[in-house]
Amino acid sequence: MQKVKISGMGVYLPKETVEFHGAKRFRANKDETHLFMLVESAKKALEDSHMTIDDIDCIIGAVAFGLQPLPCTASLIHEALSPQKNIPSFDVNSTCTSFITALDLVSLMIEQGRYKNVLIVSGDLSSIALNPNEPHSYELFSDGCVSAVISKSETKDHGILYATQFTYSKGAHFTEVYGGGTTLSPHQMNLSNKEKFLFHMEGKNAIVLAIQMGLELFDDIKKNSPVPLKDIQMFIPHQASNALDSMMKRLHIPDEKYINIVKDYGNMVSASVPFSLYYAIDKGKVKRGDLVLLMGTAAGMSVNAMIFKY
Amino acid sequence: MQKVKISGMGVYLPKETVEFHGAKRFRANKDETHLFMLVESAKKALEDSHMTIDDIDCIIGAVAFGLQPLPCTASLIHEALSPQKNIPSFDVNSTCTSFITALDLVSLMIEQGRYKNVLIVSGDLSSIALNPNEPHSYELFSDGCVSAVISKSETKDHGILYATQFTYSKGAHFTEVYGGGTTLSPHQMNLSNKEKFLFHMEGKNAIVLAIQMGLELFDDIKKNSPVPLKDIQMFIPHQASNALDSMMKRLHIPDEKYINIVKDYGNMVSASVPFSLYYAIDKGKVKRGDLVLLMGTAAGMSVNAMIFKY
Repeated sequence: MQKVKISGMGVYLPKETVEFHGAKRFRANKDETHLFMLVESAKKALEDSHMTIDDIDCIIGAVAFGLQPLPCTASLIHEALSPQKNIPSFDVNSTCTSFITALDLVSLMIEQGRYKNVLIVSGDLSSIALNPNEPHSYELFSDGCVSAVISKSETKDHGILYATQFTYSKGAHFTEVYGGGTTLSPHQMNLSNKEKFLFHMEGKNAIVLAIQMGLELFDDIKKNSPVPLKDIQMFIPHQASNALDSMMKRLHIPDEKYINIVKDYGNMVSASVPFSLYYAIDKGKVKRGDLVLLMGTAAGMSVNAMIFKY
Repeated sequence: MQKVKISGMGVYLPKETVEFHGAKRFRANKDETHLFMLVESAKKALEDSHMTIDDIDCIIGAVAFGLQPLPCTASLIHEALSPQKNIPSFDVNSTCTSFITALDLVSLMIEQGRYKNVLIVSGDLSSIALNPNEPHSYELFSDGCVSAVISKSETKDHGILYATQFTYSKGAHFTEVYGGGTTLSPHQMNLSNKEKFLFHMEGKNAIVLAIQMGLELFDDIKKNSPVPLKDIQMFIPHQASNALDSMMKRLHIPDEKYINIVKDYGNMVSASVPFSLYYAIDKGKVKRGDLVLLMGTAAGMSVNAMIFKY
């Protein structure tokens, strides 16, 4: 067990929403840049933790689609929060599940004694890359950012009991933004490949693979987790799509034991898992000491799970 | 001490070179895509380790400027190397020093007992974003990729004794590619902002800050490293620029104790530190059991150091 606790969390959701077939989606306005939302969520997480940036030993950017190709997103968050204090900053990226991967790595660094308090900053501005010609993704995603302060826990009352990840790269192109990096640079954009610089999701293929990944993930949890699944108080899944209910049914998780807020919040990419946790805590569905299972499928495609004693 | 060893390394350098004022720079041709170079270096690292991909438990992408905005670069390397085997993959990014940060994190995961062999894949295709109108960067950078297999060491003959990072974000924009992410999307490119999607370096500001960072880094090493600097057999710096010699002089490191290959190889971004290590091993300047200090400044700006018993 890595003895860490979440000292506090902060959320920034855009002011404006749009509606598709009764489902609410958040859309950042011009002033709500990606950096602004990331930094606002970080400030709220510090406030919620009763800390200032001076208490933080390291900043991790856990974002799917970064601010700039160079430098890493964490440095730019660092610039806004801590221009005078030279704490380390770097990015961890497993796309939609980046928060889980970052929390896992942070727990090892805290367990080693290197850091006491680490700020993880997640969230995406997906609307900048959504394609109106692809309704199944255009109408699914929301903008939003979530941060958390992860601290050393002196007792075994809080911590990580199990964490794992698998990547099924046969689905590497089921959800992607192809252009914008070194494979297809912005300078190569022309009228015929413009859509390659937008988000594309092969919805059906992604869901079929996600269900296979979910089932195999649960086989691993049953085999390798130190606690049985029946002891989990709340399952916190990535809000990947409207197929969440059928996925959870396949995994035999009863309705009252998981968070499904796809209708009201959409898929917030890297912010979805931490936002669902924040939501569960806020609504009293998760209390201190509860065992929660953070889980999610991600572009790549990867699947992550973590059993965390909140 | 995290007991890990480098089982093997692999390098891919482009076939073509160009020359500027007697300095050689590597430039990938059309067939040498970024992904191709990354994967070739990974295959060579596996071969050098007498392993196949079936021996690898996790793939880390430690690249500064990724292949696609989504998914992470490691998934796309995974797709080329291991489409049938669902080992985890994710990215770690501290720009030019990503290899050091990744090696540090990998050592914690191996020490925890989670993995036995992890493949770290580094390297950049900087030429795709170089600006011919900015000679001090255009004539400095090279393309190239380097991978390493990191394995559990059963003995204390190999491992990490010290690792640290600091970020001085007042230099966040001294070296950057501003456009291409969410701050300035490829769709916002026009005739007047085209150069914003290319690499830009404020050479003088970057060097002045780098020297400050180097001096403060060495203060930390002197204070916190379990071994004194005089015991280091070889210093392996990031090949940041032609100012490397004057930086090393300021740090009182004698000429014969560090690697300077800027003239023949240029700054290979995330590949520079692992390439310099590979070069030192290949030339017999570093032998098994030697203490090496990997170090470097990075866009962000960050500075990393690691004392490693090779």
